[in-house]
Amino acid sequence: MATPPPASARRLLPLSLGLFQGALLLFFALYATYDEPSAVATQEEDGTRAAEQLPGLFPLFQDIQVMLAVGLGLLLAFLPRYGLSALAHNFLLLNLSTQWALLLQGVRHGQLRLGLHNVLAAEFAAVTVLISVGAVLGRTSPCQLLAVAFCEVPVYLASEWLVVTQLGVRDVGGTITIHVFACYFGLGVSKALFGTERRPAHPKETPTPRSDLLALVGTLTLWVFWPSFVAAPCQPGDAQHRAILNAFLALSAGAVTTVVASSLLESGGKLSPGHLQNGSLAGGVAIGALADVPITPAASLALGSLSSLVCLLGFRFLTPFLARRLALHDQCGIHNLHGLPGILGAVASAVAGLSPRMAHPWVLARDGKHPPAASGSSAASLLAGNSNGV
Amino acid sequence: MATPPPASARRLLPLSLGLFQGALLLFFALYATYDEPSAVATQEEDGTRAAEQLPGLFPLFQDIQVMLAVGLGLLLAFLPRYGLSALAHNFLLLNLSTQWALLLQGVRHGQLRLGLHNVLAAEFAAVTVLISVGAVLGRTSPCQLLAVAFCEVPVYLASEWLVVTQLGVRDVGGTITIHVFACYFGLGVSKALFGTERRPAHPKETPTPRSDLLALVGTLTLWVFWPSFVAAPCQPGDAQHRAILNAFLALSAGAVTTVVASSLLESGGKLSPGHLQNGSLAGGVAIGALADVPITPAASLALGSLSSLVCLLGFRFLTPFLARRLALHDQCGIHNLHGLPGILGAVASAVAGLSPRMAHPWVLARDGKHPPAASGSSAASLLAGNSNGV
Amino acid sequence: MATPPPASARRLLPLSLGLFQGALLLFFALYATYDEPSAVATQEEDGTRAAEQLPGLFPLFQDIQVMLAVGLGLLLAFLPRYGLSALAHNFLLLNLSTQWALLLQGVRHGQLRLGLHNVLAAEFAAVTVLISVGAVLGRTSPCQLLAVAFCEVPVYLASEWLVVTQLGVRDVGGTITIHVFACYFGLGVSKALFGTERRPAHPKETPTPRSDLLALVGTLTLWVFWPSFVAAPCQPGDAQHRAILNAFLALSAGAVTTVVASSLLESGGKLSPGHLQNGSLAGGVAIGALADVPITPAASLALGSLSSLVCLLGFRFLTPFLARRLALHDQCGIHNLHGLPGILGAVASAVAGLSPRMAHPWVLARDGKHPPAASGSSAASLLAGNSNGV
Repeated sequence: MATPPPASARRLLPLSLGLFQGALLLFFALYATYDEPSAVATQEEDGTRAAEQLPGLFPLFQDIQVMLAVGLGLLLAFLPRYGLSALAHNFLLLNLSTQWALLLQGVRHGQLRLGLHNVLAAEFAAVTVLISVGAVLGRTSPCQLLAVAFCEVPVYLASEWLVVTQLGVRDVGGTITIHVFACYFGLGVSKALFGTERRPAHPKETPTPRSDLLALVGTLTLWVFWPSFVAAPCQPGDAQHRAILNAFLALSAGAVTTVVASSLLESGGKLSPGHLQNGSLAGGVAIGALADVPITPAASLALGSLSSLVCLLGFRFLTPFLARRLALHDQCGIHNLHGLPGILGAVASAVAGLSPRMAHPWVLARDGKHPPAASGSSAASLLAGNSNGV
Repeated sequence: MATPPPASARRLLPLSLGLFQGALLLFFALYATYDEPSAVATQEEDGTRAAEQLPGLFPLFQDIQVMLAVGLGLLLAFLPRYGLSALAHNFLLLNLSTQWALLLQGVRHGQLRLGLHNVLAAEFAAVTVLISVGAVLGRTSPCQLLAVAFCEVPVYLASEWLVVTQLGVRDVGGTITIHVFACYFGLGVSKALFGTERRPAHPKETPTPRSDLLALVGTLTLWVFWPSFVAAPCQPGDAQHRAILNAFLALSAGAVTTVVASSLLESGGKLSPGHLQNGSLAGGVAIGALADVPITPAASLALGSLSSLVCLLGFRFLTPFLARRLALHDQCGIHNLHGLPGILGAVASAVAGLSPRMAHPWVLARDGKHPPAASGSSAASLLAGNSNGV
Repeated sequence: MATPPPASARRLLPLSLGLFQGALLLFFALYATYDEPSAVATQEEDGTRAAEQLPGLFPLFQDIQVMLAVGLGLLLAFLPRYGLSALAHNFLLLNLSTQWALLLQGVRHGQLRLGLHNVLAAEFAAVTVLISVGAVLGRTSPCQLLAVAFCEVPVYLASEWLVVTQLGVRDVGGTITIHVFACYFGLGVSKALFGTERRPAHPKETPTPRSDLLALVGTLTLWVFWPSFVAAPCQPGDAQHRAILNAFLALSAGAVTTVVASSLLESGGKLSPGHLQNGSLAGGVAIGALADVPITPAASLALGSLSSLVCLLGFRFLTPFLARRLALHDQCGIHNLHGLPGILGAVASAVAGLSPRMAHPWVLARDGKHPPAASGSSAASLLAGNSNGV
């Protein structure tokens, strides 16, 4: 909808999408079955087992779906002219990338035993695409977006395997594997598509109070459900409880710090809607890497505050600098929301990991109970399909 | 709000509604109690039992409430002029029809033992009213809407009893009993109210980008929570897990197919917001009849794609044809979203039912584990009040 | 954003907020730990215990977060000019007050063992602030709002302790301690800030159909999730099931009565959006005090209807009277939504409490099983940190 494509490109979208759906259907027909424990156990046992685990996982899954389809879609609708197509493209990319990630999982393991945990892992892969395209929002055709999704999902899966399985980096909430990766992939895409072209901001690209209000509703939706995003890959029980509280504290501190920093950075002391829309979420990005680590509540608060501060400083100083020096186009400021807080979270995770037994003030001493880094990302185990979850 | 009613009709609405509320209150005072197991068991046991089942059912109930009050309301708000009244009327009809269905359940069984499962069953009855009035959106007075609700709920309950209890049709997600029924009831209402009157579309009935955006948010809300709608009446455990995955796959494939088909059908290759709003949900309508059947993932994908295709072809060719030939007025296109995909789902269910042991490629062979058709609709068992659920 | 503050006030907001965040961080670093049962029990047991209770509580927590951040924010956005700042200020106050209440809990008990139940109790404290500021919406600077939050939270905690712990008043849903308290605190704030100044309504303070639509979406969000708000502090099991059903019936009857009463009260028989936005929720306010009491379904319906009626009569007659006689400014009509229905609920609770064994027609006789008033508010037990919940 954004830029009217030429006649040939008009057919390119339905053709390539249709082909993709056909190929997917063929693959699923050949390789995919449902991961029903019933296949190997007696009917009684599975019914019981799934019934026990589904009530714990399904509400988190629905929360994450709301975040991706509604929350992120509305957040991207801050440009009044592209609101409808931002929402529509986000929805298309979500579905396409999830299905594509499911297929790639199947290819990797020779077959696909579908369960809610696979779908969740595939949605995490789709998140990277949704983040990346924020850099080029409103300047790309649907076909270009499809090409990004087609390339990014396999690269994500490979990088996730490398970072988590091979290097053993802790990253339960996807701070590094999802946010940092998606940010730099998206900036690369932006550079590749627009090169050194310096396009001035289109006058219609200015948010209005109305589009800002809807985008803020999107932010609030993401903010509310972020703890579910971080908790879903955690082990049920203690780790999940900890992840929820850590995420809540980081997000809450981040929201307050955003108001403080925005009032100081903006001339006139007014709040900038763009700052609020992005800064409030930075704490959630950073806490991902540490979510299930028993850090203290104060550490979560401090990390959340710091992330929002870094995010807003990025908007105020780094984005104009990058645009001027590198002609780097970053429409939604993904480098500020996903890149900088993600790096901050990764550093914090490394610091916490280095000092497990030193009674580090930020880490709750639990006489050696500190989870070793080798336990890695639950997202990875979800993806590998060897989760013993639902 | 839509059409200013004459002075007598202005009093008709509060009078009839007030009378209805009074009668309902009297009925509840005489016949309704809470379905507390505590009445027959020891205090200890029930507390435990309800505590076990409530966490599984209540989140699904809330998801369905969001769908009906917020999602469907916003979807109906696509006409800018009627946005507010569409939302308000949808809300009124939801409450009224639910209470009316609860009363009728009580009348049928001589008493009403209220529990979350009754309320859910009553909301399923209310859904039929909300779907049906989509055919006459913006052209009816509130009193006419009340009359539709008053008539449709008992007819739905009778038809549901006939189709599921008497004919033994499988329909856990309400494809036939809710969607197909509500569609043709709504078209009948439209014909009865407007006859052969050919009213040209009012210029103010054209959606604007802004009203389309809100309607798309409604669609996305419905899309996200649809698996909960389909899973709520299923047995907890395996069947529920399967229903969730089937619904997710059908909805996801439907969303992608909608984009493909809309680009091909629209001149200029642009996406039509109306197509996206409706086509994305068609897969959910069709999968209802099969949701807990162990069909293969590929079958869910294929059914979802096909439903969206049929839905969009209906918008493109059938609706203009019906309007021209039969002067049939269908403002929201309920025949395309609920009628055609519903019939498709019913046919697919019949095909799957015919071939339970033939190792049909679309149905997972599970050595005779295929659920017999006689198990019928869980919605029916919910309604009959003999559920042993919460 | 609303009223441009003078230059010194512009620095006051970030300075005071920043100081607050710093003090909070210090406090958390010194006193707060996570309430992990693991500290006192073996690793195995807690994992199991938390895993059992988290799936029951966390979805309710998320529902309440949606209500406060999204639902209430949108409801307050009914003034088109202040929509964005209403949403932003509501979000800031929610975070600030929650953190402030957590700190005060910690001060009271000498230390803070954080768990989901503490955070919930702190959010209940924040709700009072969000309600109170509705009286002065759009006429106060952010700094004034912060001052309200700073004062109201400790007063709420003291009044809650007095009413529930000392006087032993039943109030599981916060009818008295949250709604009535917040209403009169807010009116006091309004009186203190504006005195007898009679400011005529600004022409830009008139809602538009568009802002009314978004506010109605906020109402619907609150309406849908209200049962979660009432059920969260209840004991899991029977009491929670009862609270959900009581709240649902009261809210549903209230919605229908609102339409009846609004049609009668408005000239021309049209529905007033403002009536619908507020009246639909009055039933939820009133039922709070009785939510887990085994009253009959008819009593819930009657209470819901009566509350909505009282709320609308308040809007029609009491608000103009108070504005004229006392020059009392109540922008959102919190006295009608929270004050009057709250008092009604308190009276109903007292009546139900007086007649526990008299087989009162409104109270289900359960041979002495009627919960004694001494069991008090679960919110209080949550706050006191001695909940044995998650």
